[in-house]
Amino acid sequence: MSEAVNLAGRARVVEELWSPRIVARLNDYEIKVARIEGEFVWHAHPETDEAFLVLEGHMRIELRDGRVELAPGDLYVVPRGVEHRPVAETECRIALFEPRGTVNTGNAGGPRTVEARDWA
Amino acid sequence: MSEAVNLAGRARVVEELWSPRIVARLNDYEIKVARIEGEFVWHAHPETDEAFLVLEGHMRIELRDGRVELAPGDLYVVPRGVEHRPVAETECRIALFEPRGTVNTGNAGGPRTVEARDWA
Repeated sequence: MSEAVNLAGRARVVEELWSPRIVARLNDYEIKVARIEGEFVWHAHPETDEAFLVLEGHMRIELRDGRVELAPGDLYVVPRGVEHRPVAETECRIALFEPRGTVNTGNAGGPRTVEARDWA
Repeated sequence: MSEAVNLAGRARVVEELWSPRIVARLNDYEIKVARIEGEFVWHAHPETDEAFLVLEGHMRIELRDGRVELAPGDLYVVPRGVEHRPVAETECRIALFEPRGTVNTGNAGGPRTVEARDWA
């Protein structure tokens, strides 16, 4: 029997910004936490939807045709293939729910690509 | 472009206890919210893991070999096939992540079985 995971508690102590850590698995899906601040890169995930849940702070998800503002407790699902850019004016802690192996930069790649690591 | 969903806000206004409502979809998974209070039935989901996230209040997940206590922001994944019984001494609002079509009573069935309805 494992223990419960406090999502915000885990997110707070992630060392690097924009570097999701895996805190739980659900079948072939992963639940990750991350600290974000500033602007990420525009990207899309051609093969999967992606759920963002704000734990602490505020963020917005910029889309080519608008934006979605997220406050604590807000969930938003970016549909597969939809270009988006996560932005946080000040530090924000989030959870992500997506299939195993989903890469943070999606189809964009580049220097901000990181492999999600296990909490360990 | 759809809007963000506040999970606790949605959960608060669900009319019936133990009756999950679907608030978002992610590929072939569903994100549901529910209000719970009292003891549910012992059951298992032979075909899937099931994630519980406490939004407001406290609950415990009783297992045949122990129990897991959950406070706000706590996440716990019940592995597939593991018998469990959700219990909340006082009203608790939760989110559930699980594959489309997962039934609340799993393999137990019985009178407390309800089909998760769309928010609409």
